[in-house]
Amino acid sequence: MSESSIGIFDSGIGGLTVAREIHARYPGEGLVYLGDTARLPYGSKSPDTIVRYAVQNVAFLAQHPLKAIVVACNTVSAVALPALRAGTDIPVLGVIQPGARTALAATRNNHIGVIGQPGTINSARYEAEIMAGNPEARVYSRATPLLVPLAEEGWVGSDVARGVLIHYLEPLMATPMDTLVLGCTHYPLFRTQIQHLMETHFQRTVTLVDSAVSVADELGALLADHCGGSRQSPPHQFFATDDPASFTEVGRRFWGQGFPPVVHVDL
Amino acid sequence: MSESSIGIFDSGIGGLTVAREIHARYPGEGLVYLGDTARLPYGSKSPDTIVRYAVQNVAFLAQHPLKAIVVACNTVSAVALPALRAGTDIPVLGVIQPGARTALAATRNNHIGVIGQPGTINSARYEAEIMAGNPEARVYSRATPLLVPLAEEGWVGSDVARGVLIHYLEPLMATPMDTLVLGCTHYPLFRTQIQHLMETHFQRTVTLVDSAVSVADELGALLADHCGGSRQSPPHQFFATDDPASFTEVGRRFWGQGFPPVVHVDL
Repeated sequence: MSESSIGIFDSGIGGLTVAREIHARYPGEGLVYLGDTARLPYGSKSPDTIVRYAVQNVAFLAQHPLKAIVVACNTVSAVALPALRAGTDIPVLGVIQPGARTALAATRNNHIGVIGQPGTINSARYEAEIMAGNPEARVYSRATPLLVPLAEEGWVGSDVARGVLIHYLEPLMATPMDTLVLGCTHYPLFRTQIQHLMETHFQRTVTLVDSAVSVADELGALLADHCGGSRQSPPHQFFATDDPASFTEVGRRFWGQGFPPVVHVDL
Repeated sequence: MSESSIGIFDSGIGGLTVAREIHARYPGEGLVYLGDTARLPYGSKSPDTIVRYAVQNVAFLAQHPLKAIVVACNTVSAVALPALRAGTDIPVLGVIQPGARTALAATRNNHIGVIGQPGTINSARYEAEIMAGNPEARVYSRATPLLVPLAEEGWVGSDVARGVLIHYLEPLMATPMDTLVLGCTHYPLFRTQIQHLMETHFQRTVTLVDSAVSVADELGALLADHCGGSRQSPPHQFFATDDPASFTEVGRRFWGQGFPPVVHVDL
């Protein structure tokens, strides 16, 4: 058991925000990360296609000794968790239930906003999880698809991103929401810009929920319950389905020095 | 021969601008169109992955009787044509060589700008084709990745699109270019907005080149040379690798009434 790792996958680089958080919180755990970069993005694909890809990703990860698998992608968490859990004995954690719990703990008026990619929003999984935790809560959700390419193309903090964020957030500002779930693993990159817009442009006090933090909490409980910490830290391993060079480059930006070379794999 | 069709493929919906042009010019020809929507976009993927997907797409199309295959995607045309031509006896046309020829015919000062997705621009195929036609020509190229999600998410004509276009086009405006190749099959959707920016914001006279028109010209020559027109028009067939419903919806917007139902296929 002490040699087994935590498996993490995402359609691409967004899940590195989750991997980084888990690494920071549990530095003794080894990580096996898969970015399905050849087939990204998942956010605009249909549920059937997302399930098919996610099952292939888990089958690849499960070739390694694992104590848990973290689905570091909101879209996959929204539509594929039952299929993934049916196919493996390894505990599988999504990001939506933890994010919903954190939002419920943070809100003071039970009015919660959610932004995410179309696949996540169309699934209405955040609504379902939040209402399961508190049937009195009200959820206001909005698909904000452009935020992913804006993040990947380096427009975070720009006037263009500001215009897109204002366009997307304006309808949510007409509601009494006091808490906003960043329902995509790319969105924490906009955290500072969104917080600044809330304070200056919209003049609202809103708590932002980052599901990377929430899922790391949940993982900690699972590690304590079932597995104990690793005695010996297995090395981190990173895999990508497209060219590993560009993934390594972005990974270094997220992770800093010590980010290991990424290995290519065909799925 | 009279029953064979023209095969067309793209990573998704962008190629419909090419299919529509071919249909308008050669209404007697049947079309077999494949949109690899489950794996789009191609523009940010590595050459190896793009070649692999393109070969699978051609293998699927070649199950139908075809007189020609049109690669309605600049990224695939840039990196995969030799591999595709090596694998089939059917003539395979890309969009880059026709676009380069049209640009050379349009320019008066031999200074030509090219905008495209990263895979197309990094390949430098437009430069190579333009220089092959006229070694005196100068080419100024720029990757403009955000234009694809902006087009797909319906931001054409918006202030956000204006801001992105100005940011992307500004460095090209510092050159003497008088002709701009829209090097991605999505970009013709921005044609009016780009033309308007040229006239008002940049105050420049620039000829825009749409490769859908150029490849339809080239296809006409091939049909006249080798095949003659079809005596009898086979029905159009449209296939997609992701959910066909949303593809059908977008297809109707491009095509108008009479756009046939799209059939799902796994590749």
